[in-house]
Amino acid sequence: MDLNADLGEGFGIWRLGDDEALLDVVTSANVACGFHGGDPSTMRRVCAAAAERGVAIGAQVGYRDLAGFGRRHIEYGFTELRDEVTYQIGALDAFCRIFGTRVRYLKPHGALYHAAAVDQAQAAALVAAVNDYDRELPVLCAPGSVLAQLAAGAGVQVVAEGFADRGYLPNGSLVPRTALGALVTDPDQVAERAVRMATEQTVVAVDGTVIPCPVDSICLHGDTPGAVASAAMVRAALLDTGVQLTPFA
Amino acid sequence: MDLNADLGEGFGIWRLGDDEALLDVVTSANVACGFHGGDPSTMRRVCAAAAERGVAIGAQVGYRDLAGFGRRHIEYGFTELRDEVTYQIGALDAFCRIFGTRVRYLKPHGALYHAAAVDQAQAAALVAAVNDYDRELPVLCAPGSVLAQLAAGAGVQVVAEGFADRGYLPNGSLVPRTALGALVTDPDQVAERAVRMATEQTVVAVDGTVIPCPVDSICLHGDTPGAVASAAMVRAALLDTGVQLTPFA
Amino acid sequence: MDLNADLGEGFGIWRLGDDEALLDVVTSANVACGFHGGDPSTMRRVCAAAAERGVAIGAQVGYRDLAGFGRRHIEYGFTELRDEVTYQIGALDAFCRIFGTRVRYLKPHGALYHAAAVDQAQAAALVAAVNDYDRELPVLCAPGSVLAQLAAGAGVQVVAEGFADRGYLPNGSLVPRTALGALVTDPDQVAERAVRMATEQTVVAVDGTVIPCPVDSICLHGDTPGAVASAAMVRAALLDTGVQLTPFA
Amino acid sequence: MDLNADLGEGFGIWRLGDDEALLDVVTSANVACGFHGGDPSTMRRVCAAAAERGVAIGAQVGYRDLAGFGRRHIEYGFTELRDEVTYQIGALDAFCRIFGTRVRYLKPHGALYHAAAVDQAQAAALVAAVNDYDRELPVLCAPGSVLAQLAAGAGVQVVAEGFADRGYLPNGSLVPRTALGALVTDPDQVAERAVRMATEQTVVAVDGTVIPCPVDSICLHGDTPGAVASAAMVRAALLDTGVQLTPFA
Repeated sequence: MDLNADLGEGFGIWRLGDDEALLDVVTSANVACGFHGGDPSTMRRVCAAAAERGVAIGAQVGYRDLAGFGRRHIEYGFTELRDEVTYQIGALDAFCRIFGTRVRYLKPHGALYHAAAVDQAQAAALVAAVNDYDRELPVLCAPGSVLAQLAAGAGVQVVAEGFADRGYLPNGSLVPRTALGALVTDPDQVAERAVRMATEQTVVAVDGTVIPCPVDSICLHGDTPGAVASAAMVRAALLDTGVQLTPFA
Repeated sequence: MDLNADLGEGFGIWRLGDDEALLDVVTSANVACGFHGGDPSTMRRVCAAAAERGVAIGAQVGYRDLAGFGRRHIEYGFTELRDEVTYQIGALDAFCRIFGTRVRYLKPHGALYHAAAVDQAQAAALVAAVNDYDRELPVLCAPGSVLAQLAAGAGVQVVAEGFADRGYLPNGSLVPRTALGALVTDPDQVAERAVRMATEQTVVAVDGTVIPCPVDSICLHGDTPGAVASAAMVRAALLDTGVQLTPFA
Repeated sequence: MDLNADLGEGFGIWRLGDDEALLDVVTSANVACGFHGGDPSTMRRVCAAAAERGVAIGAQVGYRDLAGFGRRHIEYGFTELRDEVTYQIGALDAFCRIFGTRVRYLKPHGALYHAAAVDQAQAAALVAAVNDYDRELPVLCAPGSVLAQLAAGAGVQVVAEGFADRGYLPNGSLVPRTALGALVTDPDQVAERAVRMATEQTVVAVDGTVIPCPVDSICLHGDTPGAVASAAMVRAALLDTGVQLTPFA
Repeated sequence: MDLNADLGEGFGIWRLGDDEALLDVVTSANVACGFHGGDPSTMRRVCAAAAERGVAIGAQVGYRDLAGFGRRHIEYGFTELRDEVTYQIGALDAFCRIFGTRVRYLKPHGALYHAAAVDQAQAAALVAAVNDYDRELPVLCAPGSVLAQLAAGAGVQVVAEGFADRGYLPNGSLVPRTALGALVTDPDQVAERAVRMATEQTVVAVDGTVIPCPVDSICLHGDTPGAVASAAMVRAALLDTGVQLTPFA
């Protein structure tokens, strides 16, 4: 099983999350590329630290929106989005190569993640950027999303991710953030759900039914101190159960 | 002889210069990388057109200053500048690779060009970025500059450029822009000076003396319609004289 | 009748449209405030020139999106949009006051104009910003838009504008840009339509029927040389017909 | 005596310092205006909280450099800097007016603070912006700086500030940050120095001599948790000594 998390999301003087601590937990680092967060020196620092630990580096690409942290939907057209994504992948890859590695996958951030799950043009722009840059690059995304479909259709590898700290509906989709049961906050429960995902490829939905959850990576959050501790507990629980943790890429 | 010019310096809706026309004149295109000008879709378009014509693509890296078009000196430290340059090279290279080519050289833009000519830390940052990214990448700059010295010292190839439309002092440096004789505006004279540079490796200084001018590339300007016509005249005059025009890289 | 146009939409080295020429045509200048276009020195220059000619200055507020020129919809929340609009109005007002005048009205730009016509939260944010800053400030917008309704409901003056160079559907709304008849390109016809709007408060719809068009201002476009000439023809035609041209504000 | 500190220096999702805690300590708030830090919603929130507490609001204007937090010198020309400062003052004033107050003074931030202390053109740009906007606006700066001189010469009120946590040379200037004795880190000593400044208008220089320090405001730092506690100790010590704390403006 792979564990992924967002990293390098500070900008200039401003910090966000504890990159060093998270790098000791994950096997794949979604590194921000400067458009929604992240700056060149942060990118270099995170790439160096990830490479040193054998953590795979993915391009966490986002909208050009520092003020909104890439969390506001922007009505990009296909061409502009494709090119902005290409730009971000290339910029990150330059830092990866310094440390003897390279960009291993792509994961959209924030509002782009959500748009790519439902919007044909934006999902297609991501797939086109991957195709242009390196068709071997997998895309890390929600199973069943439009992005997953278009990527698969274009021969791009899709890596499905699950969320141990989010509630699932019986149909396999996430409980909306505004609804009851959207978040699982108890660290023990989060770790237990991660183990179930890794060992049985299932999850307990909000109605108590056990549903399939065939994921190759579990997404951890680290933008609060508590979250880092919870992420570490997931890692420990998986290792205790004998699950091997390795980057999918 | 090589002819280079700045290209792709528009941003979003705003255009600057006639990229298409200049691409028919030059052998090397200094493509803006999005920090002082240039945006991803412009970068892609210019890279496509350059690759199609066999024009070499160089990374025209600049300060992060769209409002000042990279023409205001910024007191960058070594680390930040190195990393911002790495970022820009990588981003441009992603577009080059789509069209079967890659970044062939680096040229600093505007205030960074001037700073790198005299400032040890900023020149060293450029050399470090080249060294990290690809030690085979030549640096296009003014002969005798600190950048030229540091690059040579680090084993990075230096390509010296001359300016057919600028006056030279007897000591080989450019007449300051505010002084008499700084600019040569007559297109015939500009073309004549370019031919002299290419065939005799000399230039007539402001005091009338003929001085050595050993350059491998001549820099043309294209940000006005007249300048494009003048650039085309330089090209025609060189070809008429039998000078072969090929990218240095 | 009032004539309004967008002005000051360059940024840094990049120019857009001929501000000086348009200022001789319009009675109200929608001045860009730096978020989608416009920079402080341009704002000052346009305010000086407008004040000198007795042209009323309006805050042309937009999304924070230089790369997209404010033409891409952004899913702003109420609070952020309200505050970004307040910021822009205040910044422009500082330049107005230097030249003995002040911001006289507000007009949303590009994608914000369109969003405010249909989106309750975004329209409400504009109204809240006006209410907070100066309840006497009119809002220049499309008649019948959500913005017009919310503004009227809040006691904010609504000034309706018409487009002499756009086709109208029989129901009074504009022909969508992608449909036949969206644009009226013949300058004589544009001028004739402007005269009809000013003297009869009607417009000929695409199906040939004459429909009411009760507007207080006609919007002119000036981002192409031809458009400036056409704008000047509208002005001349109105003056020839005896229509008095004065700012609505 | 007045106590001032920098506030509202976060940007978007990123926070910096504890604005709420500092507002309970200071009498004057230097509010960031969005160019080096600060965003519209933060500006509004800080202005609301300051107005509620009777804390005077000053425009903390900086270079347009979010990536460098305004701490890198930028070679601005007079015109551009003047206009960018005008823009920032106006934007902040819009928020002040919502809460029944207004911008009460101007203080340059970071590299602009240092440039204005020695650079005629940049200091003159600040004075010109104040003169244009409101000649009654005092400038908060280092005594003896070029800014203080030019402001005084132009009839603009100068408010001198001292630093209780910085070492002074016998000639009255600050010990450079890289030299021994630059920083006073013991909170008790900082408080003691503030009391001496407020009651005797003197400071103990690094060589032990007591020198004059005629300041109207003491600058406190709050970008670390320890700094906020230290600032609170300064406030308490001054009140204990019977010093009255009121905004200078």
